[in-house]
Amino acid sequence: MLTTLSEHFSFGGKVGYYQHASSVNTCDMTFAVFTPPQAADKKVPVLYYLAGLTCTHETFMIKAGAQQYAAQYGIMLVAPDTSPRGESVPDDGDWDLGQGAGFYIDAQQSPWNKNFQMYSYVTAELPDLIKNNFAADTRKQSIFGHSMGGHGALTIALKNPGAYLSVSAFAPICAPMQCPWGQKVFTAYLGKDQSNWQQHDATSIVKSINDVTQYPEILIDQGLSDQFLELQLYPHLLQQAAHSVAYPLSLNQHANYDHSYFFIASMMEKHIRHHASKLNN
Amino acid sequence: MLTTLSEHFSFGGKVGYYQHASSVNTCDMTFAVFTPPQAADKKVPVLYYLAGLTCTHETFMIKAGAQQYAAQYGIMLVAPDTSPRGESVPDDGDWDLGQGAGFYIDAQQSPWNKNFQMYSYVTAELPDLIKNNFAADTRKQSIFGHSMGGHGALTIALKNPGAYLSVSAFAPICAPMQCPWGQKVFTAYLGKDQSNWQQHDATSIVKSINDVTQYPEILIDQGLSDQFLELQLYPHLLQQAAHSVAYPLSLNQHANYDHSYFFIASMMEKHIRHHASKLNN
Repeated sequence: MLTTLSEHFSFGGKVGYYQHASSVNTCDMTFAVFTPPQAADKKVPVLYYLAGLTCTHETFMIKAGAQQYAAQYGIMLVAPDTSPRGESVPDDGDWDLGQGAGFYIDAQQSPWNKNFQMYSYVTAELPDLIKNNFAADTRKQSIFGHSMGGHGALTIALKNPGAYLSVSAFAPICAPMQCPWGQKVFTAYLGKDQSNWQQHDATSIVKSINDVTQYPEILIDQGLSDQFLELQLYPHLLQQAAHSVAYPLSLNQHANYDHSYFFIASMMEKHIRHHASKLNN
Repeated sequence: MLTTLSEHFSFGGKVGYYQHASSVNTCDMTFAVFTPPQAADKKVPVLYYLAGLTCTHETFMIKAGAQQYAAQYGIMLVAPDTSPRGESVPDDGDWDLGQGAGFYIDAQQSPWNKNFQMYSYVTAELPDLIKNNFAADTRKQSIFGHSMGGHGALTIALKNPGAYLSVSAFAPICAPMQCPWGQKVFTAYLGKDQSNWQQHDATSIVKSINDVTQYPEILIDQGLSDQFLELQLYPHLLQQAAHSVAYPLSLNQHANYDHSYFFIASMMEKHIRHHASKLNN
């Protein structure tokens, strides 16, 4: 059962905010959908967007400027929240752990494991909801994201070859096992055994791939004035890993751009076009 | 003296947030500027945007999606805050009076008259700041806005024929003397004598114009699912006034769209193109 929180006409389509009782996260979850005008006549492909730390289900629709291109190419946009939320959900005083910081993994450690099952949510529960409630051609889906959500998009596409026709990221966390954000949350959610971490680290996954032809090309855009680039993001490590197994990666670096949605919006047309070339094929 | 609060690269140009001590409002004021890439080589025309109730100097740059078109056409965007703010500035418990609700007029009544001089701020103090601190060709300026800011854009252009090359509005308050928002703030800021109100009421001003050839055409877009349309906006009254004096008004009504920035963003390309056709002439 979906509850409609609000709906707003946008570029001939509709932005909607919805809420439902999540079985995997055992709490209410919210998400946003942009339904393009083409969905009035037929089922349309779906592009999932995963947001970064502190963002909500609203951030992408308000700040990223994606609707105009999704309307142009006839693509549904789906943006989940970045974590479970609510008084019954554990939290942490820090902004990079707990609510707003789900990291798109299934937590194994208490107290997080009761609610923080964001990998299962994004890859299974949410797609089922979309299939059952929207004019979505769910055989055609792709995924992208920003920062923590870029990590989510990359790892989810890499763990499910064939499931996503394309994948891209804006300023993603490329090697969470090696940066402070990743080490902190992986320890909290997964425990200290780092062998459990590797399947959620894009750089580690890519290194282990034997047959790269089963995977989509990775498109990444990265601003060079990004305040988190040096300490947290490590695109060069993913680039080295991709090079080592001949994984197709397009890493584009841009002078002056920072980590904000002003950067994301500036690159949005290129990314939607990238996904449309696969989804509308 | 301008203080730079932050700057962010955007569509090859730069979004900046700035603060300064305002002499007309006798408090610190903040505003936003998008400097397009063309300003690296020459002075560029300026388009002022006035936001609606509760918005800040940040709202337009985050939500309206205007930078891409301003970058395309080489236009500087300037977005002031919607009122003076701060602990020393009077406020009201309601969201439609006081801080966040300057209405772009010069208050005459205590306690508002000390700080709420938004008409003088937008028409004189802010343009001087832009001229002296940015690569702006200030002989070429236009103005647009949303809701309360649509009222501001219309009345400011109408009170200063020749000063703005073009004017447009999204869902503007067209006849504030006749709607609850306008009656409330005009009483508070201007006093009960309604003869003082007419010069700040677009419908009243238009009715009184003798030679419409001295004024720019007015472009308005209005959503028909706008929750404020019936009680507050009254575009039909402005249309009747324009008709009575043969003032050129293009009032475009759109089914399904509401009062939100999703509507504004959907209409933005059309409005920037309208202003560019005058500013780049």
